[in-house]
Amino acid sequence: MTSPAAPPPVLPLAEALIACPSVTPAAGLVFDCLEGQLAPLGFAVHRFTAGEAPDGPVENLFAIRPGPDGSRHFAFAGHVDVVPPGDGWASAPFAPEVRGDLLYGRGAVDMKGSIAAMVAAAAAVPPDAGTMSFVITGDEEGPARFGTVALIDHMREAGAIPDLCLVGEPTSVNRLGDMMKVGRRGSVNIWLEVEGKEGHVAYPHLADNPITRLVHMLAELKAMPLDSGNAWFQPSNLEITDLAVGNPATNVIPSRATARLSIRFNDEHTGQALADRVIAIAERHGGSARPVISGEAFITPPGAFSDLIAAAVEAETGLVPEASTTGGTSDARFLKNLCPVIEFGLTNATMHKRDEAVAIADLDALARIYARIATAALAG
Amino acid sequence: MTSPAAPPPVLPLAEALIACPSVTPAAGLVFDCLEGQLAPLGFAVHRFTAGEAPDGPVENLFAIRPGPDGSRHFAFAGHVDVVPPGDGWASAPFAPEVRGDLLYGRGAVDMKGSIAAMVAAAAAVPPDAGTMSFVITGDEEGPARFGTVALIDHMREAGAIPDLCLVGEPTSVNRLGDMMKVGRRGSVNIWLEVEGKEGHVAYPHLADNPITRLVHMLAELKAMPLDSGNAWFQPSNLEITDLAVGNPATNVIPSRATARLSIRFNDEHTGQALADRVIAIAERHGGSARPVISGEAFITPPGAFSDLIAAAVEAETGLVPEASTTGGTSDARFLKNLCPVIEFGLTNATMHKRDEAVAIADLDALARIYARIATAALAG
Repeated sequence: MTSPAAPPPVLPLAEALIACPSVTPAAGLVFDCLEGQLAPLGFAVHRFTAGEAPDGPVENLFAIRPGPDGSRHFAFAGHVDVVPPGDGWASAPFAPEVRGDLLYGRGAVDMKGSIAAMVAAAAAVPPDAGTMSFVITGDEEGPARFGTVALIDHMREAGAIPDLCLVGEPTSVNRLGDMMKVGRRGSVNIWLEVEGKEGHVAYPHLADNPITRLVHMLAELKAMPLDSGNAWFQPSNLEITDLAVGNPATNVIPSRATARLSIRFNDEHTGQALADRVIAIAERHGGSARPVISGEAFITPPGAFSDLIAAAVEAETGLVPEASTTGGTSDARFLKNLCPVIEFGLTNATMHKRDEAVAIADLDALARIYARIATAALAG
Repeated sequence: MTSPAAPPPVLPLAEALIACPSVTPAAGLVFDCLEGQLAPLGFAVHRFTAGEAPDGPVENLFAIRPGPDGSRHFAFAGHVDVVPPGDGWASAPFAPEVRGDLLYGRGAVDMKGSIAAMVAAAAAVPPDAGTMSFVITGDEEGPARFGTVALIDHMREAGAIPDLCLVGEPTSVNRLGDMMKVGRRGSVNIWLEVEGKEGHVAYPHLADNPITRLVHMLAELKAMPLDSGNAWFQPSNLEITDLAVGNPATNVIPSRATARLSIRFNDEHTGQALADRVIAIAERHGGSARPVISGEAFITPPGAFSDLIAAAVEAETGLVPEASTTGGTSDARFLKNLCPVIEFGLTNATMHKRDEAVAIADLDALARIYARIATAALAG
């Protein structure tokens, strides 16, 4: 594998993207900015909106720079939307600011910094190396119904199916390069409800307290055996994430009690099979359960793709990234239906937090890693 | 025991009281109305407010008609505040309306109808039979910190301690006269809280889910053995009356979870002893518990007072009232510190409900019963 040319500095590209406020769902300005970075590199940029309320419309961008006929196709994927900044920042979250060796701003690591590194990498890879594309959504942090899903539809219709895809989520933990994600657990959220009969606490025999049944249901669900993990995945896990009754009256037994679960599961389960088990337990306690499956577990089996990423990372950082399946879901859960997909990006210590920041040196190192990955992926 | 004179019709007295809106805490108009009914009967009316925000100020009324020196003192006690009417009434809740044999309006049975029957009874009892008083609060349905408690302070200061006291709560169940209350269970509400550590559901090892501990705490509390009841009391009972987390994010483990309990307990417990047991369990699960004791269990042992009430009820209705300790608390829990207290009043089927209504015939029968009780109580 030959070393690609040195990418241009990433800092100004990242600053320009961060300066466009884009709390999820992102639209307009931040896409204009990205289009303005990609077009000069020879990319044909296609922007479109998809979906309707309540989870749309969503703005998306697909950019492609075709290589010679018959060449391979490598895709960078990611998102330009960010989570809300919250309060208490030392500098304005959408006014990128360099302090010391760090660039501060919402999206610095998740993931405008990565997008900027992808652009710089694309500048370093000659067009005749092969077909490159950018698969960029404005709704990854939100419902994600009309983002990458719609981009995949567009790519299928355009016959633009990549051979390999890299998602730029911030997968590194302590140092840039220490972890990539070769798969993800699946995720299902389940809304539980128990209807009872309202009454006065002094006359419990005339009422039916739904909270009692909900508590016993939740205790049983929390004790439900899942699995012990396997070679690629940690054990599946169930968390109760909300309880709600909303009864202000101390002397009233309420008529309704609700709860919400989140199960993160490995490839020993499907979302539906887990949902069915929860529904059965809920119904045995006289309640009901409404599951929403966010994504199934998946794995890109270790092999050539993970090897070339590991080699690129090691060449620039000296670290061999751990091939992990931990953490939350990402749009890789959709892209895995298109081609092998692996995630690699910046350190995630400050993502979704106030004073989100990235080391400027990491931005440039990431661009070099991405350029190596693209070059190797296109070489096949 | 001689029969007292026939009381005047109760309907117009009850209508006048119901026509004064008095959602708890009651003030002003409804007290003006009651004062206007009592003053012509020879009662000296003392009105005063007690307490400060948030549970005050509260308006109260103490009226007394002294009998001959050395005569006995009998007190009627009750409240003129009502619970909010809610929606869906067939007629306006504060516009008393007779339809068929029934009088409709908020407070018809709980307890403006009873107050009106007390007034009519007082009209039928000659002043020389003994000292009679009315102990009337505007805050029984609310916090009740500055209502009957303040009235008792006033009576102690005035040296006006009754020999016997009848509270006019709607104690009858299916027919007027089928039940009186000779005691009440105690009541303690307990606020539970578990603090954890917020985090992402995908990284549960970095968080501490307070809901898990709350669910296990509640399951243990619900299984806590209390008692099996005794000769006068049904078994004590614990109900979970609220759960709250307030976490809108499906992918977040929240930092805090809360619940609320209500324990209704008999005379085998004190509120503090129960609170201490709950606190110990809460703390074992890493949570905390904040108890508020509303009242201790008490009993007016069956004897001369309950016998004379039973005789009065039987003479007018043919029923011998069951001496019960069931149901919620009432201001009898305070008055029992002053003198023997028993509760007897209208049927409670519609209390606190929409279209609250009382049989007009029951109002007049209750006035006759109350007149018999007062006469017998003053005879000693």
